[in-house]
Amino acid sequence: MNGRLVIAGLGPGAEALVTPEVTAALMEATDIVGYIPYVARVPDREGLIKHASDNRVELGRAQDALRMAADGRHVVVVSSGDPGVFAMASAVFEAVESGPDGWRDLQIEVLPGITAMLAASARVGAPLGHDFCAINLSDNLKPWALIEKRLRLAVEADFAMGFYNPRSKARPEGFARVLEVLQDACGDDRPIIFARGVSTDVEAIRVVPLTQAKPEMADMRTMVLIGSSRTRLIERDGAPFVYTPRSVRV
Amino acid sequence: MNGRLVIAGLGPGAEALVTPEVTAALMEATDIVGYIPYVARVPDREGLIKHASDNRVELGRAQDALRMAADGRHVVVVSSGDPGVFAMASAVFEAVESGPDGWRDLQIEVLPGITAMLAASARVGAPLGHDFCAINLSDNLKPWALIEKRLRLAVEADFAMGFYNPRSKARPEGFARVLEVLQDACGDDRPIIFARGVSTDVEAIRVVPLTQAKPEMADMRTMVLIGSSRTRLIERDGAPFVYTPRSVRV
Repeated sequence: MNGRLVIAGLGPGAEALVTPEVTAALMEATDIVGYIPYVARVPDREGLIKHASDNRVELGRAQDALRMAADGRHVVVVSSGDPGVFAMASAVFEAVESGPDGWRDLQIEVLPGITAMLAASARVGAPLGHDFCAINLSDNLKPWALIEKRLRLAVEADFAMGFYNPRSKARPEGFARVLEVLQDACGDDRPIIFARGVSTDVEAIRVVPLTQAKPEMADMRTMVLIGSSRTRLIERDGAPFVYTPRSVRV
Repeated sequence: MNGRLVIAGLGPGAEALVTPEVTAALMEATDIVGYIPYVARVPDREGLIKHASDNRVELGRAQDALRMAADGRHVVVVSSGDPGVFAMASAVFEAVESGPDGWRDLQIEVLPGITAMLAASARVGAPLGHDFCAINLSDNLKPWALIEKRLRLAVEADFAMGFYNPRSKARPEGFARVLEVLQDACGDDRPIIFARGVSTDVEAIRVVPLTQAKPEMADMRTMVLIGSSRTRLIERDGAPFVYTPRSVRV
């Protein structure tokens, strides 16, 4: 059994943000497995088999990939961003843990990528330049009460925050409640950043004060960042810079 | 004034983790600015001037870079990892905000990189596969009381955590107190990961239960990760996989 499973991060969209390590892994693969739009980013070549699947079938997709690797294939599971951040790596390890013993002894490797949070942060300056947290706002996988609890504790800790999966057609209401919780807990007008499709053709960045944030500013392609109480705007011609200073002096 | 300032992330060490975007920016630079070991990673070439400086002079280094860009140079400030995560981007924007008005109108661009937290996570599996936070443990720039407050709130929120700058010769005691706070607040034996020099020649990874963690397992080249209460170990021949499931069911 010489199969191999690589879980690779394609970054937020631009080819210039794909690491050489990931590019090399894609060249060596016999099979590419992933969500349809991510698999489509991998160039076709002779002998390469692509297995594209729809959203929300992550565990089944992971099991398929593991089965192929156990059969001796050289499989690359592709994620956008970083595979370890709200992406396919956890799904693969869930499948390993609950699967046949032999899957534990497969060669499994995770290759990091540029995650959306850091790509979005770079576009506006350095809003995550001090301590921060990352929260997945989808309540498909956890109860709303836990999301609200984490938001309030993160505000109390004065973290800057990055929000993945803020809003979808299936969950139009959740992000409105998130904004209400943030407006209540923060009690100030710190900047919130809506970064859609960073590094792609549809990139659009908007920075607004928290009290002016509206749910419809986000969709599933939007990364949302919010500053800590210390985050600053540098006004200038054009879009302002947003950054969080390194120091907290008391 | 056609100067340009780019703040580029070199990733954790391996050239295979440097994005093509950053490689291209380094090729176009007239001047490279940064901490000595990071500047040393940039290949020499005719006409390229390297300005290497010691640790702990980040603000002065940022001001030098901005002055050169204002003089029409094409300057790249290099950071390891991602420049927006406890690195040079915030220092540059601090310098911009407190500097001459003209600096605000310079072309300033941040290029993301693979940050140590995500490189370390990838090496062991997917410990950051659910909500997580990142905390800089250096108390050079913030009071110890704030670090302790954040640790306790992060445990209460049940975040996995990534710790940057856990320990240095100048601060040998802080990390011992961090481990005490974590052992007290977590009250369990969740895995803690010490990832030293990830992707470099000296890479060394250790996974231990929290109660067996010792301060001397970390130094300034070590990224420390700790799981949430849900993080799991998959035992196998060789190093275990560590991952945090995507779901929380209550």
